[in-house]
Amino acid sequence: MKIVHQINQVKGMIREVRQKGGTIGFVPTMGYLHEGHLSLMRRAKVEQAVVVASIFVNPLQFGPKEDLAVYPRDLERDSVLAESADVDILFVPAVEEMYPQGVKRFLTVVDVAAITGVLCGAARPGHFRGVTTVVNKLFHIVEPDAAYFGQKDAQQVTVIKRMVEDLNMNISIVTVPTVREADGLALSSRNVFLNVAERRAALVLHQSLQAAVRLLAGGCRSAAAIRAAMTALIAAEPLASIDYIAVVDRDSLAEIAAISGPVLIALAVRIGKTRLIDNMVWEG
Amino acid sequence: MKIVHQINQVKGMIREVRQKGGTIGFVPTMGYLHEGHLSLMRRAKVEQAVVVASIFVNPLQFGPKEDLAVYPRDLERDSVLAESADVDILFVPAVEEMYPQGVKRFLTVVDVAAITGVLCGAARPGHFRGVTTVVNKLFHIVEPDAAYFGQKDAQQVTVIKRMVEDLNMNISIVTVPTVREADGLALSSRNVFLNVAERRAALVLHQSLQAAVRLLAGGCRSAAAIRAAMTALIAAEPLASIDYIAVVDRDSLAEIAAISGPVLIALAVRIGKTRLIDNMVWEG
Repeated sequence: MKIVHQINQVKGMIREVRQKGGTIGFVPTMGYLHEGHLSLMRRAKVEQAVVVASIFVNPLQFGPKEDLAVYPRDLERDSVLAESADVDILFVPAVEEMYPQGVKRFLTVVDVAAITGVLCGAARPGHFRGVTTVVNKLFHIVEPDAAYFGQKDAQQVTVIKRMVEDLNMNISIVTVPTVREADGLALSSRNVFLNVAERRAALVLHQSLQAAVRLLAGGCRSAAAIRAAMTALIAAEPLASIDYIAVVDRDSLAEIAAISGPVLIALAVRIGKTRLIDNMVWEG
Repeated sequence: MKIVHQINQVKGMIREVRQKGGTIGFVPTMGYLHEGHLSLMRRAKVEQAVVVASIFVNPLQFGPKEDLAVYPRDLERDSVLAESADVDILFVPAVEEMYPQGVKRFLTVVDVAAITGVLCGAARPGHFRGVTTVVNKLFHIVEPDAAYFGQKDAQQVTVIKRMVEDLNMNISIVTVPTVREADGLALSSRNVFLNVAERRAALVLHQSLQAAVRLLAGGCRSAAAIRAAMTALIAAEPLASIDYIAVVDRDSLAEIAAISGPVLIALAVRIGKTRLIDNMVWEG
């Protein structure tokens, strides 16, 4: 595995792969890798000749009061993990490499309307603009055949798919299932912020999704009833406070009242100071 | 020359060119071709194996009160002209092909801040967002090695160069000199709107730029003095009304008061109902 910090160096390596006719799979991450990231890398390796992963904690997608400064970073550990998942090229640009004029003087943004103002976008204004802008840049740097994203960030997947479709980008977006701890907690780099009591309380996200599944399996088709059951379950946990619980169409992210087909059930919950998300898709 | 209407068809043809190792030059236009467009195509043909030109009157870059409905169109004539300039592939998508959900339900925009709010951007809010969005789409469809733009649309060139740089797109932007009528009028598809008296009056754009050159050649380095001389000359023409006269840095488009190096002098003038633009770069 090669670790590369310069855009031009990555572009040069990508050109060589292309000249030999190799396909490229890409896994963009913010690092502090866990089994969820590694599952994306392994999936990419199965499907593509060469796997490029990036580690970049993108300032553009953090709000002024968010956890940019304390977002966990550990390049040494990440390198070992990425190599263990057969990554060929690990691209780790500095902020100055991605935003040479500085983040505040960077002029071009890629913005997806409507579907970025709901769910996580409602609580994190500008977040998805930062995501689509940096992913657009990374897509041009790596020019992959396919890029791999985790289902855990369901809205991110929907938004990026829409960007790729709207801008006619020649990239397949592959969604890989959420990886969970044995007790159901979805893996997240932010889980490291949880103390023992919070770690236990964080189970309410998955438990509330399981409650939703039970209701759906029992024939309930009312989004309001499902949200109410999830809300009650989470409200019973003193360390948890709900940001949102949403029952929406997977592509438009529009709210669904009466469930008649596939539906995305997504939620964001603060456990102490840590904001966690989780979701499931009910195939209908 | 092949005329193609479908995105997938163009992408297929581009793939074939790439497999044979051919380079691709791209000339995006709104059609109603004139010698200015043809000069871009000929330049592309000199530098690249295959030339793709597009004709698309992009609704996204016209304001609600602008001339989208009456913008001149003549595909038959354009085809003959493009073929005469050795274009290999003429891409002519319908609006529904570029914006399948409809223009108003299209979600993703590419927006360059700051440098799009001045000069033409001040009078045409949203115009450059429409330009960068459609050019971004076209760049992904054609994936050219180089794209060719006329110096006549100086701000457009600056904005597109910035988009390509900021988003790390792998495309060279080539600027080709403005083509003029014998009497100096810059070629424009909108010149067709001018009646005989307006055609004569339209000469003030070029004449005012020539006046600026004379002042600069005579040692004048005051932008205010240059703007004043240009303003006086245009004010003397009853059919002309000034939208803007700007003396700016070529890259940042920031106003320059005391000229000490290369400078872009650009203007927009209404001749009757027709808004015309012209510019020159003083190399300093």
